[in-house]
Amino acid sequence: MHSRRSLMSGMALSAGVGLALALPPRRALAQAAPAGEGQKIWGGRFTEKPGALMQEINVSIDVDRRFWKQDLTASRAHAAMLARQKIITAEDAAKIDAGLKTIEGEIQGGTFPFRREYEDIHLNVEARLGELIGPASGRLHTARSRNDQVATDFKLWVRDALDEMQLKVRDLQLALVHRADEHFDTLMPGYTHLQPAQPVTLGHHLMAYVEMLGRDVSRMADARVRMNECPLGSAALAGTSFPIDRHMTAQALGFDRPTANSLDGVADRDFALETLSCFTLCAGHLSRLAEEMVIWSNPQFGFIGFSDSYSTGSSIMPQKRNPDAAELVRAKVGPISGDFLALNTVMKGLPLAYDKDLQEDKPPVFHAFDALDLAVRAMTGMVLDFKANKARMAAVAASGFATATDLADWLVQRLNIPFREAHHIAGGAVKLAEGRGVDLPQLTLKQLQGLHPGITADVYRVLTAEASCASRTSYGGTAPTLVKQQVQRWKSLLAAAAKA
Amino acid sequence: MHSRRSLMSGMALSAGVGLALALPPRRALAQAAPAGEGQKIWGGRFTEKPGALMQEINVSIDVDRRFWKQDLTASRAHAAMLARQKIITAEDAAKIDAGLKTIEGEIQGGTFPFRREYEDIHLNVEARLGELIGPASGRLHTARSRNDQVATDFKLWVRDALDEMQLKVRDLQLALVHRADEHFDTLMPGYTHLQPAQPVTLGHHLMAYVEMLGRDVSRMADARVRMNECPLGSAALAGTSFPIDRHMTAQALGFDRPTANSLDGVADRDFALETLSCFTLCAGHLSRLAEEMVIWSNPQFGFIGFSDSYSTGSSIMPQKRNPDAAELVRAKVGPISGDFLALNTVMKGLPLAYDKDLQEDKPPVFHAFDALDLAVRAMTGMVLDFKANKARMAAVAASGFATATDLADWLVQRLNIPFREAHHIAGGAVKLAEGRGVDLPQLTLKQLQGLHPGITADVYRVLTAEASCASRTSYGGTAPTLVKQQVQRWKSLLAAAAKA
Amino acid sequence: MHSRRSLMSGMALSAGVGLALALPPRRALAQAAPAGEGQKIWGGRFTEKPGALMQEINVSIDVDRRFWKQDLTASRAHAAMLARQKIITAEDAAKIDAGLKTIEGEIQGGTFPFRREYEDIHLNVEARLGELIGPASGRLHTARSRNDQVATDFKLWVRDALDEMQLKVRDLQLALVHRADEHFDTLMPGYTHLQPAQPVTLGHHLMAYVEMLGRDVSRMADARVRMNECPLGSAALAGTSFPIDRHMTAQALGFDRPTANSLDGVADRDFALETLSCFTLCAGHLSRLAEEMVIWSNPQFGFIGFSDSYSTGSSIMPQKRNPDAAELVRAKVGPISGDFLALNTVMKGLPLAYDKDLQEDKPPVFHAFDALDLAVRAMTGMVLDFKANKARMAAVAASGFATATDLADWLVQRLNIPFREAHHIAGGAVKLAEGRGVDLPQLTLKQLQGLHPGITADVYRVLTAEASCASRTSYGGTAPTLVKQQVQRWKSLLAAAAKA
Amino acid sequence: MHSRRSLMSGMALSAGVGLALALPPRRALAQAAPAGEGQKIWGGRFTEKPGALMQEINVSIDVDRRFWKQDLTASRAHAAMLARQKIITAEDAAKIDAGLKTIEGEIQGGTFPFRREYEDIHLNVEARLGELIGPASGRLHTARSRNDQVATDFKLWVRDALDEMQLKVRDLQLALVHRADEHFDTLMPGYTHLQPAQPVTLGHHLMAYVEMLGRDVSRMADARVRMNECPLGSAALAGTSFPIDRHMTAQALGFDRPTANSLDGVADRDFALETLSCFTLCAGHLSRLAEEMVIWSNPQFGFIGFSDSYSTGSSIMPQKRNPDAAELVRAKVGPISGDFLALNTVMKGLPLAYDKDLQEDKPPVFHAFDALDLAVRAMTGMVLDFKANKARMAAVAASGFATATDLADWLVQRLNIPFREAHHIAGGAVKLAEGRGVDLPQLTLKQLQGLHPGITADVYRVLTAEASCASRTSYGGTAPTLVKQQVQRWKSLLAAAAKA
Repeated sequence: MHSRRSLMSGMALSAGVGLALALPPRRALAQAAPAGEGQKIWGGRFTEKPGALMQEINVSIDVDRRFWKQDLTASRAHAAMLARQKIITAEDAAKIDAGLKTIEGEIQGGTFPFRREYEDIHLNVEARLGELIGPASGRLHTARSRNDQVATDFKLWVRDALDEMQLKVRDLQLALVHRADEHFDTLMPGYTHLQPAQPVTLGHHLMAYVEMLGRDVSRMADARVRMNECPLGSAALAGTSFPIDRHMTAQALGFDRPTANSLDGVADRDFALETLSCFTLCAGHLSRLAEEMVIWSNPQFGFIGFSDSYSTGSSIMPQKRNPDAAELVRAKVGPISGDFLALNTVMKGLPLAYDKDLQEDKPPVFHAFDALDLAVRAMTGMVLDFKANKARMAAVAASGFATATDLADWLVQRLNIPFREAHHIAGGAVKLAEGRGVDLPQLTLKQLQGLHPGITADVYRVLTAEASCASRTSYGGTAPTLVKQQVQRWKSLLAAAAKA
Repeated sequence: MHSRRSLMSGMALSAGVGLALALPPRRALAQAAPAGEGQKIWGGRFTEKPGALMQEINVSIDVDRRFWKQDLTASRAHAAMLARQKIITAEDAAKIDAGLKTIEGEIQGGTFPFRREYEDIHLNVEARLGELIGPASGRLHTARSRNDQVATDFKLWVRDALDEMQLKVRDLQLALVHRADEHFDTLMPGYTHLQPAQPVTLGHHLMAYVEMLGRDVSRMADARVRMNECPLGSAALAGTSFPIDRHMTAQALGFDRPTANSLDGVADRDFALETLSCFTLCAGHLSRLAEEMVIWSNPQFGFIGFSDSYSTGSSIMPQKRNPDAAELVRAKVGPISGDFLALNTVMKGLPLAYDKDLQEDKPPVFHAFDALDLAVRAMTGMVLDFKANKARMAAVAASGFATATDLADWLVQRLNIPFREAHHIAGGAVKLAEGRGVDLPQLTLKQLQGLHPGITADVYRVLTAEASCASRTSYGGTAPTLVKQQVQRWKSLLAAAAKA
Repeated sequence: MHSRRSLMSGMALSAGVGLALALPPRRALAQAAPAGEGQKIWGGRFTEKPGALMQEINVSIDVDRRFWKQDLTASRAHAAMLARQKIITAEDAAKIDAGLKTIEGEIQGGTFPFRREYEDIHLNVEARLGELIGPASGRLHTARSRNDQVATDFKLWVRDALDEMQLKVRDLQLALVHRADEHFDTLMPGYTHLQPAQPVTLGHHLMAYVEMLGRDVSRMADARVRMNECPLGSAALAGTSFPIDRHMTAQALGFDRPTANSLDGVADRDFALETLSCFTLCAGHLSRLAEEMVIWSNPQFGFIGFSDSYSTGSSIMPQKRNPDAAELVRAKVGPISGDFLALNTVMKGLPLAYDKDLQEDKPPVFHAFDALDLAVRAMTGMVLDFKANKARMAAVAASGFATATDLADWLVQRLNIPFREAHHIAGGAVKLAEGRGVDLPQLTLKQLQGLHPGITADVYRVLTAEASCASRTSYGGTAPTLVKQQVQRWKSLLAAAAKA
Repeated sequence: MHSRRSLMSGMALSAGVGLALALPPRRALAQAAPAGEGQKIWGGRFTEKPGALMQEINVSIDVDRRFWKQDLTASRAHAAMLARQKIITAEDAAKIDAGLKTIEGEIQGGTFPFRREYEDIHLNVEARLGELIGPASGRLHTARSRNDQVATDFKLWVRDALDEMQLKVRDLQLALVHRADEHFDTLMPGYTHLQPAQPVTLGHHLMAYVEMLGRDVSRMADARVRMNECPLGSAALAGTSFPIDRHMTAQALGFDRPTANSLDGVADRDFALETLSCFTLCAGHLSRLAEEMVIWSNPQFGFIGFSDSYSTGSSIMPQKRNPDAAELVRAKVGPISGDFLALNTVMKGLPLAYDKDLQEDKPPVFHAFDALDLAVRAMTGMVLDFKANKARMAAVAASGFATATDLADWLVQRLNIPFREAHHIAGGAVKLAEGRGVDLPQLTLKQLQGLHPGITADVYRVLTAEASCASRTSYGGTAPTLVKQQVQRWKSLLAAAAKA
């Protein structure tokens, strides 16, 4: 659907049926058929040619040609099975197989005649096969229907898409891991409510996204396992009386097994919906990192900068670096979640088994795949590209009394002061420092002892951003040594995944 | 975006960056750049060429070329204003105008060189203008920015789209009115909960959709009025110091006035969102009628049938008529509402003034327009096409004790029995008839008087479906005389609208 | 629905039907009925009591009691009309009216017995009326049905909600106008891509939101006009044979006219969907301002601060001000757009006339109203509350070569240099200043003349942020004089609206 | 949020701030504070009390009290760990544990004082603990923050919800399996495009839903595994310097491991979103079956009927059975998908680590759980309740030339006629029968041989609906023997799941 319609350059404003009843029509239909061919009702007011309109809404070849390869693969597996089961002769099967190979070559070579009058990829292939091999082509569709055929083709494509996307997302993880490795101890402010809260390291921050993306990959892998059942052989809806071997075709096409219910086999689009859900969550993660990149590259932050490859300048303000790529990635969760909701609404309340509404399953999936594919690759590029301003980040990390929590924790741990009371004393120290116009490490021991006599010089050990970070050694914490360990863990995991 | 990416025939399964760290990459990037040009990091694992990637995500010419005409129109109005305000010379303005006319001819003639390196329609036009008229072209962009330019162009396109869609929807209304006129007294069961409740006429039923679509047109008309303010002259975000006349360009482009705040002028996309909302509601109405058409054309109902123009048959079951067009129309509310949500999510939390995220505004609007345009035209065709099985509808309308309410109302009106008690008596009559295996009009007067002695033969006057319909004479009711009046009212309204 | 279910404290984990077939059930249903009353199938495994379950899903009194007042008002209007049309006696009408008044008092006084066994507000009122006035109560429901009754009640509520929300949003506009008045010339950086682009004033920025909210109010006003047709009298679906006067009840209830088609009267929920769409767009605008407030109150920006009334601190970091209220307002567009989607999906494909699915119309509308009401009031509070750090904003506005465009415009206007070339020269000036570590106003005349010999000392007039702002005098521009004019315009508009 | 606001009975129409500037306010704010306490700005127009407003938007106790049990459980695990790690004394830990047990008793007994001034469940518990055990309570919050606490509590609740929902859905599967067992050979028409296509059995049809629901359960199980990592110990965002043992608390709370990154630990809401996605797909499946139930119980179909437990009648039309429960179940996918969208939009673009926007995570999850829980239970009841009209279904299954495909398949299998040609001959037979007003089995052998001389009497073996069904023996087909096998397979699977 998305790509089905040609660009409507300038939009034909003259369209619209004339509405006058006793009056001459004000406008003629842009799509008006030649006189005599349209609907001749009530004095010729409605002149749109029904056949053309039906074709316009019904034809899907511009969309479903995208899985031509899956269609050919499934047909070849089907023909081989028919032959082994003696449903067609070996000779016919050989002709069919050769014909399909020829078609593959034609499509790859750009010479295949895609024809709108043959509606969809299935009929285009079948028509061409007839031209190439004659009557034997009529045996290919034995014991199957377009209903199970399209479900099989589309599932194969979606399965490939899930495989492909997992690779792309792991690339992004790898890029993040490498930058995290580089910045495992680069100080930056950790934010809550976009207010500096405690120092963390940039490496730790980037590794948070590695975790999120790890869940995305895991989600796609689960979806792939769940969908990997072959609908081929469900036929129109009820199965078939031909002695087919569905396990054979399932195996040949890489499925774990055939689907167990023929009605479900042709009516199910869970695999598409679940894929769109996986893509939506992943796009949401990208939107969060993209938002941070936009904020970090604002001059008041000044944490990172992008090269010309991922930002645009201005002829007049050469210093200006607009993070266009990050903004575009941030936006993608909109259309991708829109695709999920589109298909979910289409599926609402559809009776079994096959309804034509299901033709609206492919555009949102194709569209979401393209959008996420681009967003993931662009984000990978940005992650590899950005330059961190370490001095600026460290300065901000050290400002704003960011180690007040560390002071409180020191009071609890060294002086055994209850948590809530320690917080109160630390709050006093912040107020004192604020009044003096200094930060916590600049307070004198005497000043600190004024807040609690038990405080010793040992406290200064925890009042710097570096010390604060280093002290967060609980599992998963921001201490650089722990960040390094997580980097190593993920390097191993990603290397193992790449070998698998 | 929807149409930006070429078809990914067969999907390149070999894509994905190799993830191995110390290992040879398992796969090479499908989009891999020639050696030496990509990102050379960590041993060449990331080889995607950043510039190409940025262009891929940033370029919008494949999408925004759709409003080339609006871009030219707005530029010509801008140039004329600059000349009148003496900001550019009359001579330069004439050159610019001539150049833009030449470009219009080139685009219409298919010879205009759309070039991806010029990113969008604005820069493509500007570049071509430079080639055609030389340095004077450099004066055109005086006192404007791409930010206000794209807002203006897109608004002009959306305004045209709203105008166009109103015409199309009124065509559909007209088709419905004509079929309602034809069937103003054709009996059919009126349903609640998809259970027959009371007889209505087919004309009355069709006129309900004329009301719904009337609200759709009204909603689009309101949106058009609200959006009709011209952002041109907002410049980048702050306005300009050139002595421009925004009222002049606004008037020249058919706007009611210029926008009152330059930041809002470039940041606002309400007009697109509101249009998508209007389209969503309209598509929802179509989904309801389409659902009814699917149900009505089921053989167990057998109320209507479609010609070959709006249904598909089966080579093997020639009597089968699949209402494909109705199913496809029913589905469209899915993707169209998805487009609304897509843009709404994109807009969430965007700081002023212009953010690149706004580039994601056009694909959902273009896509939704095409989808609704097709759905409305297909529905118009189906409304004109369907053949009603009047005998079948009348038979069902008369069955199922559908006039029980009429009996109760007769009891209230003639015998002054309270409403709730009258209902109780009518319920008794239904039980009696059900037990006898007949419908209400077949009960004898004696039997009826057994339920209430006051019942007279006059009651039979209200027990047929025809009488029931004819009696519903409250304003807006299904009495054929009233349906006819509503048909006349809408014929007048639509004729007036067509003349306007 | 949202409020229908009691809090499931701790969630009953023991729920779930035992699934074992030949085995003792592992768990007993939490809602298990007493032995003997549930469904006795297959050895008692399914023990949920069907009647209770049906009541649980069917009962709506916890939701629809919210429009009790509208129900009473509509019933009183209906009874008065029935009496005037002689359908019921004046005596009965008087009893009914008195009874309904008594009920109003009971509900306001908290003594009305809301009973779940009477399912919804309509039956609760009717049952109570019977207890209060006896048989005459049975006449009230003459010539109407719950189908048109609920449509009327809900429409009345939604109409009130639209009126109410317009008032609230205008309050927010008023607050913005006042702060804009206060800051009509307060300098701040104007951003594109969250990168400083050109100086603007805070007043101008706030007025952009006044424009957006103005469209929101206008949209709600249009929705109100469109929905203002009375469905009462549509009866179950077909109208009625009683000689009712629908124009009389329509007028009594403040509607412009009765609905013109009885099927549409009971099947239509456009008014709810359109209202949800209006609320979604408004919430989107709030999310943008809230995002800016979050960013502006970050210390690296430091533009604004909130009092304790709209931010939360930390016991340990007393200087910390978390903009919690702004974050919560930012989030609200999520659930509100979810409500729109919810109802839109519910409506998809519903056949005429009334379906029980329509019972799901009220929870999203009630929920969205509450969410937006709270968000608008909180935003009004924040707008009135925030304190602007003018010095900080002015400093940032003046930094970053923000007047480069002004230099270019000066070159065009004074030296008649083409726009693109002027941009090139200004870019050179920026590079020069950047290299010198200064901003544009600090470049010497000699240095500037090195870029173009025609430059004179007059140029310094335009190189400050103040001058830049003051020069943007095109209509809608940021020049303080224009901001002041817009403030005055809106003060008048809002005052007029308040009087209306 | 959904349940946070009290019912707004009758809605206060007098609300809204007066907008007049020099005029007396037209309306006073409904929520107006006592004079002197509100915001005193510009002559008293804004009188809302900021503190109350902030509390209104900020307080979550009405929502998050729902996971009080999870909060207590997590706190007890935390305290035990602190003691074992010597961070607090065994004595303090014992006091804390006893205090939390007391609180559990109070909440279960309904005597716990929930107080809005303590904002949320965490602070309510902490405050009460202080009252119960004194200063030792101040030690409980050592080495944790509300950020990791709420993430842990909510995760525990969602995990329970996923467990619970799997049980409920398996109950529904079991109900379907039993009805499928009962109707493994009950003939019914199989539909495509809601047009009869081929005979199937009711058992086969019901088993299609068992497959769908099986994927739902599998999806929830995967989500449960993926989410089962413990965020406790992530502290505010960076981890902690206390020597906590996160593996110990993770294990105590039934998690597989602690989360690996502290920023992700507090910022992640994937588990909620994925759960909402699972619920949305499941609700979609229910909407399909519900739609079929509505259609099947329409009298023109007459396939099934519901008892009074799942339908509503009419006082006047006692034969009428409105499938209210099915309609309400059909609708639920609307609000549930709306909840998914709501949270997804809330999460868009949120910077790390904790933002207050996250408080909007719980209402959609609670709401969707309640809605789906009710829908699944109601559907289970309906599946157990419906009565199938076998005669009617068989009659429709046998009509409409539904065995035309079987004739074609016979021609291919017996006479070795190519598929497409066989279809042509079968089409001829249908036309012939249609013309004669009979169905296929009534055609004479001579008539059939007129279409192809090779046809023998053997063909009649395949022309009945029974024979057609019985012949569909391909794996997953509708042959009753195969349906029986699938029933047995699922009985075993469900019994095994119940034991697990």
